[in-house]
Amino acid sequence: MIEAVRWSPDGTALRIIDQRALPADYIELDLRTLGEICDAIATLAVRGAPAIGVAGAIGLVVSLLPYAGSTAEEFGNRLRAHAERIRATRPTAVNLPWALDRMLGRASRTGAAPRDILAALRDEATCILAEDRAMCRSIGEHGVALLAPGARVLTHCNAGALATGGMGTALAPVYVAAERGAGVSVFADETRPLLQGSRLTAWELTRAGIPVTVLTDGMAASLMQRASIDLCIVGADRIAANGDFANKIGTYALAIVAHHHGVPFYVAAPTSTIDSAVPDGASIVIEQRSADEVRRSFGRILAPDEAQVYNPAFDVTPGSLVTAFVTDRGVIRPPYDFGEWGST
Amino acid sequence: MIEAVRWSPDGTALRIIDQRALPADYIELDLRTLGEICDAIATLAVRGAPAIGVAGAIGLVVSLLPYAGSTAEEFGNRLRAHAERIRATRPTAVNLPWALDRMLGRASRTGAAPRDILAALRDEATCILAEDRAMCRSIGEHGVALLAPGARVLTHCNAGALATGGMGTALAPVYVAAERGAGVSVFADETRPLLQGSRLTAWELTRAGIPVTVLTDGMAASLMQRASIDLCIVGADRIAANGDFANKIGTYALAIVAHHHGVPFYVAAPTSTIDSAVPDGASIVIEQRSADEVRRSFGRILAPDEAQVYNPAFDVTPGSLVTAFVTDRGVIRPPYDFGEWGST
Repeated sequence: MIEAVRWSPDGTALRIIDQRALPADYIELDLRTLGEICDAIATLAVRGAPAIGVAGAIGLVVSLLPYAGSTAEEFGNRLRAHAERIRATRPTAVNLPWALDRMLGRASRTGAAPRDILAALRDEATCILAEDRAMCRSIGEHGVALLAPGARVLTHCNAGALATGGMGTALAPVYVAAERGAGVSVFADETRPLLQGSRLTAWELTRAGIPVTVLTDGMAASLMQRASIDLCIVGADRIAANGDFANKIGTYALAIVAHHHGVPFYVAAPTSTIDSAVPDGASIVIEQRSADEVRRSFGRILAPDEAQVYNPAFDVTPGSLVTAFVTDRGVIRPPYDFGEWGST
Repeated sequence: MIEAVRWSPDGTALRIIDQRALPADYIELDLRTLGEICDAIATLAVRGAPAIGVAGAIGLVVSLLPYAGSTAEEFGNRLRAHAERIRATRPTAVNLPWALDRMLGRASRTGAAPRDILAALRDEATCILAEDRAMCRSIGEHGVALLAPGARVLTHCNAGALATGGMGTALAPVYVAAERGAGVSVFADETRPLLQGSRLTAWELTRAGIPVTVLTDGMAASLMQRASIDLCIVGADRIAANGDFANKIGTYALAIVAHHHGVPFYVAAPTSTIDSAVPDGASIVIEQRSADEVRRSFGRILAPDEAQVYNPAFDVTPGSLVTAFVTDRGVIRPPYDFGEWGST
């Protein structure tokens, strides 16, 4: 399995696969400075809710390494400042603030010496990565029961190995089914504007030998009408207490279309994606991204400059359209009430 | 108003705006040979159901001009062969065979001399173009009543001036409303894979001074959830007797999403788009296009070669999702029964 986000072998850098270059080029980057780490998250060199949580945690550690010799007060100020800079890179996924809060909590429970805090933070980030891998595997084991032999699975964006520290969320049941020889195949929405479906999902599945068919986002309804799709599985960036959830723009449209055709619609996510402090989807902050992602994709002028552009990075799907959540703690069916789940 | 398809001034060529080059470059092409004309239609240099009907009619005439001196038998064979070559370029839109059948019918009612037949065919093609312009205007006049002042209109693909000989079909009510100062604005799905929405609809509307906002196809549901969209209007390539219709891929998904949000969904098309011989949508032949339109758009590798691609050019929307058809003969509401309408 590919490793999208991890420590460099010497532990001085955050090593990522540069997802901006796929599928044409496979490039690994070692990131060390706060600027490099924030830029990588903001420009989606590393992306996917679980993966940016891991990247934030490891990135926080490596960005603080030059300050091991600071005074305790200086180091504490640095720690908080770096965490806030990283936290601000992307507002929608809960995993990033969740991981940073966990790191800050660990630091606050450790003695004041910077070297001790750094050692504790390195341990915590390593735990977050290991837990993420285990959570992915657990989602896969719980979700595989939903896939009959030969199942045809439609997904949106990339919630696979490239989006996590492990084997993915939405794709984890697919990988586990493939391990068991179940002969599943995947249909991947290309996922405009940044094409995580065609560039990333199709890349990692073909690399794993799993059959995948790419379609444009507007084709999913036609596909359900003309061919059998057994189920949809998508990831989630933040799940509200009532089961509403934010995910990559286009997810809500897919959920409506699946509902219209009676196709089961599953959301696969670790329980760390649940934000019990958010009562419903209307309270989730949605990141707006640059107009040029739509207007000038691929180095080409695709729309005139005089045209306005609507470019939210995510949309919110009501829990009423979700057949079940597939989590590391099992498959959760309606009615949804995550108010008591907490996010830790 | 721009003129997407017309005679060259000297009447020896089909003059088109090359829609492959928009919005970056404005290029007019004069096409004379059968090969040039078929290539222009097949590669979407000229596209849109009404426009390819006009292009087929004018193209048939100009491609036959070198054979004015042939024997009657030779010319008749040429005429039928050219019509069949042009007819085969694109299978889904009814307007192309409709226009060619009209041309062949006119020829069969004319004396045998090639020069007489050519004169009659030139007259017929000129009529088809003039009627197309008038039909567009009529659709606009009938449809404008559906647009309240300040209306926010969502459309898919391009069914505007670039898709017809006149002011368009879906955009005709918008142009008429703008003439009357009604302050309407348009939201344009970019329409993957070939981006007729962002490249063409946004281009012709900004050129006409009408506010337009581009969104990716997967964003329409989010837009309806978060902002007020008053109505959707799309074009049609073929309308079956029961009101099912074929239009650009992604139309069916938009119709489902509009239905889910209670947004009225209108189809604007000339009555020549009705194919009463086709009982329902399942009988409409859907053109499949090259995988590389999805996989290698814009000169970039967007998906790995090992991935399969699903790339139908059109989808079929059931008439049950259509609020009304806006035609040159008026606004037609359910129940739909076009079995008696014929296609002439």
